[in-house]
Amino acid sequence: MFLMNNWYVAGWEADLAPGGVIARRFLNLPVVLFRTMSGEIGALEDRCCHRGMPLSSGVVEGEALRCFYHGVEFATSGACVKVPAQDRIPSSARVRSYKLVARNHVLWIWMGDQDQADESRIPAYGVHDDPKWAWTPSYFHLEGNWQLLIENLLDLSHLSYVHPKTIGGNPAIHFRAQMATTRTDRTVRVERRMPNSVPPPTYVAAKGFTGPIDRWQEIEFEPVLIRINTGGCDAGTGAYEGRREQGFSMSGFHGITPETESTTHYFWSIATDVLENGVPETVFRQTYDTFEEDRAVLEQQQIRLSEDPLRPKVDIVSDAGGNHARRILARLMEAERTQVAAE
Amino acid sequence: MFLMNNWYVAGWEADLAPGGVIARRFLNLPVVLFRTMSGEIGALEDRCCHRGMPLSSGVVEGEALRCFYHGVEFATSGACVKVPAQDRIPSSARVRSYKLVARNHVLWIWMGDQDQADESRIPAYGVHDDPKWAWTPSYFHLEGNWQLLIENLLDLSHLSYVHPKTIGGNPAIHFRAQMATTRTDRTVRVERRMPNSVPPPTYVAAKGFTGPIDRWQEIEFEPVLIRINTGGCDAGTGAYEGRREQGFSMSGFHGITPETESTTHYFWSIATDVLENGVPETVFRQTYDTFEEDRAVLEQQQIRLSEDPLRPKVDIVSDAGGNHARRILARLMEAERTQVAAE
Amino acid sequence: MFLMNNWYVAGWEADLAPGGVIARRFLNLPVVLFRTMSGEIGALEDRCCHRGMPLSSGVVEGEALRCFYHGVEFATSGACVKVPAQDRIPSSARVRSYKLVARNHVLWIWMGDQDQADESRIPAYGVHDDPKWAWTPSYFHLEGNWQLLIENLLDLSHLSYVHPKTIGGNPAIHFRAQMATTRTDRTVRVERRMPNSVPPPTYVAAKGFTGPIDRWQEIEFEPVLIRINTGGCDAGTGAYEGRREQGFSMSGFHGITPETESTTHYFWSIATDVLENGVPETVFRQTYDTFEEDRAVLEQQQIRLSEDPLRPKVDIVSDAGGNHARRILARLMEAERTQVAAE
Repeated sequence: MFLMNNWYVAGWEADLAPGGVIARRFLNLPVVLFRTMSGEIGALEDRCCHRGMPLSSGVVEGEALRCFYHGVEFATSGACVKVPAQDRIPSSARVRSYKLVARNHVLWIWMGDQDQADESRIPAYGVHDDPKWAWTPSYFHLEGNWQLLIENLLDLSHLSYVHPKTIGGNPAIHFRAQMATTRTDRTVRVERRMPNSVPPPTYVAAKGFTGPIDRWQEIEFEPVLIRINTGGCDAGTGAYEGRREQGFSMSGFHGITPETESTTHYFWSIATDVLENGVPETVFRQTYDTFEEDRAVLEQQQIRLSEDPLRPKVDIVSDAGGNHARRILARLMEAERTQVAAE
Repeated sequence: MFLMNNWYVAGWEADLAPGGVIARRFLNLPVVLFRTMSGEIGALEDRCCHRGMPLSSGVVEGEALRCFYHGVEFATSGACVKVPAQDRIPSSARVRSYKLVARNHVLWIWMGDQDQADESRIPAYGVHDDPKWAWTPSYFHLEGNWQLLIENLLDLSHLSYVHPKTIGGNPAIHFRAQMATTRTDRTVRVERRMPNSVPPPTYVAAKGFTGPIDRWQEIEFEPVLIRINTGGCDAGTGAYEGRREQGFSMSGFHGITPETESTTHYFWSIATDVLENGVPETVFRQTYDTFEEDRAVLEQQQIRLSEDPLRPKVDIVSDAGGNHARRILARLMEAERTQVAAE
Repeated sequence: MFLMNNWYVAGWEADLAPGGVIARRFLNLPVVLFRTMSGEIGALEDRCCHRGMPLSSGVVEGEALRCFYHGVEFATSGACVKVPAQDRIPSSARVRSYKLVARNHVLWIWMGDQDQADESRIPAYGVHDDPKWAWTPSYFHLEGNWQLLIENLLDLSHLSYVHPKTIGGNPAIHFRAQMATTRTDRTVRVERRMPNSVPPPTYVAAKGFTGPIDRWQEIEFEPVLIRINTGGCDAGTGAYEGRREQGFSMSGFHGITPETESTTHYFWSIATDVLENGVPETVFRQTYDTFEEDRAVLEQQQIRLSEDPLRPKVDIVSDAGGNHARRILARLMEAERTQVAAE
């Protein structure tokens, strides 16, 4: 069960040079991403309409993608533009195409009704284009349902159990955190504050804090991107009123795209506003290790949940944010089903 | 199809030290076995009631098992005893628990209706507690249905074909064996006698026989344990009247526990009443190799049978014991279904 | 969906020496091929009627195949000829047998109604017995439906895309080829001529051509064998009127036998009429590499087609031969279904 009419992260723009071809499954549909020699990007169903060969085995030929098996060629629009050894192109010769947009160094794809693909609704992420930030892109393949990952990111109460060796730190700090959850009909925002607390080693290394700091974790969800801003400033200098310039901030981009019902593409980046002394590299390495720990947990969770997916779960207080996100997605998917049924 | 209301071997007691956690599937249900720091043993459904994480990924914390994901803790009773960062424990927060009993160095579990779990019905196996015997525990995982293994052990006519290099010996001896099969409504006993026969090399090495011996093989089945007593005495000294003290005996424990419909836990031990000269080690090694041969056969048999499980089979004379056991199990399982349907 | 009443290639005769046993699945049925000590060949269902053990685990004992598990023996007729330790053989003790015939160094099997197995309908392939030809047998296992392979061999327009490094050569030559497709109710013949064209390097090496040649590709399909004769003669010397003795010819045998719905046994040989200078070895090596390229394509095609097997495909001109073959097979299979339904 997927939300079809929605922008999803399809990849990193830098991974698709002219002539580049990438095979990737989204919402359980096979897709080929490619870039023509002139630089245009396209996303087609990864199946030649002739004999079903995956087009991703083919090669870019000028402005077209050529099937590896019999040489039939397709433009980014999905139109067949060449059939070798015959002049007439059959009128039915075309493959499905999906809108693909590059923005903020991210490739965004719309898998649903192409007429509803409104580019103005692509989630913005200016951090990737802002020279004040240094960022690194990454990718994980997760053997778990996409909503498990959303839930994981919206409930950081797992940090001290899953990440004791990386970012977990002192459990007591996390449980004393002041938490606020706010929501709209499409968004959830979870804010956690840890005022006047001991700075973690990474923070000290990055910024040289000598005393206590005011820490924050701000998590924003919309379908389907999660932005996580975390950081700290010297205690009492106005971090919670927005005066954070003299502090240390990290910004996480979490693009969560269902591959199948039980596997997920996880395109993420981590940025810091301290650009020197190896801080971006250190933060990236630590983040990578942390997400690997999450991946292991989610994959085990998936195995167990998939045995009996509809069985009720028991909620605890820290599930508030994740439950909001689940309800938003359930409502949007239900609306799609209703709309399809009415048509 | 399983027999639910029955004691099954869940493992060896020695494998579960204080703080120990074992994940194991029985009757196609995921179970976590653990032992608290005070030594109490418990068996719970291996699925946290909060978000479905396998509890077997967690750690023992004092008298509880703590979930690895969000730190929720459970007692051996299945009751939730702690939810981090909140005082109230939700009333629905509990996981299913299964009765687990340690006896004769074996862990026995009852997976069915917990109210029917009567410890007095646990199969006894005093050999493990008797200093006259030296025994070694072992475990095989079998890619085959549990009843194939029962059948295999109740029909030793396969020895000369499957085990010619280990215990098979001379086919003629096996086919001359005098066989008697007796049964009750819950047990089968197959007895084979090979009077006045040449002792196998292992027997000679163990006991120094210089002439012919009276050999026996006594196989006892009850749901679901098979005991196999084999051995020999100098011919004509009363082995068949029970005077076996001066001979050589081996006692096999065969705990057969369905993991899934097509895979089986096989907990076995082999004991000898000759404790010196490396006899127990030799016998264990030979038994291990023999059971490996059986495993290979049963896994091939499973592949073929699973293609068409209901197809009739042709019986031969030596199937008597195995067929009795199948009928006992079929009757008990049918009785369970009838009982469930009536409730 | 298979054509049952048909001769299929089951293997190479040379692979089955006296005492030899081969396990192989045809039309999704498990089969054991064996040769008795006197040289008789047999094909039985690979499942002992006693307890379902694959008979292919067993050994040939004189004129019978002995089951590895309990020693029950079967003749090539499928009749049980021995049950150890009992005199009476149960009347129901027999396994299904399939007609197996060795001809032209090929083993042919009939999986359907045994009464309809008419040896006179076995496709002839005299090349294997003709000293004018040097040939090498080979085998590929294909993770793809059998009809994809038929289609592949009947449409050589893929050569320049899939085999540019081996036999593909100059695309322009292939697209200028003169093509004729002829058919009967059981056969398809595709003929392509490339008159007055530059000889490929292999041809020059084999025959020393110094000028242009008249090339041909002649593909003949019948259920289920494809014969491909290709070659060339000096231009204008009568190749298209059948005068080819002074030229260079290759003859391909393509035995295509469904293993399952989605996997195929591909028994092939390649022969040349130039027997010296390493020509047969060179041609075999090149053919082997070429078929490996096809295998990779067909396996990718299978993956995509199996996601939605009934989805319509768009035809192009070069599909004519393959489409004829598909229609022949569809008609024959439909006739079988109708016949079975009428019985």
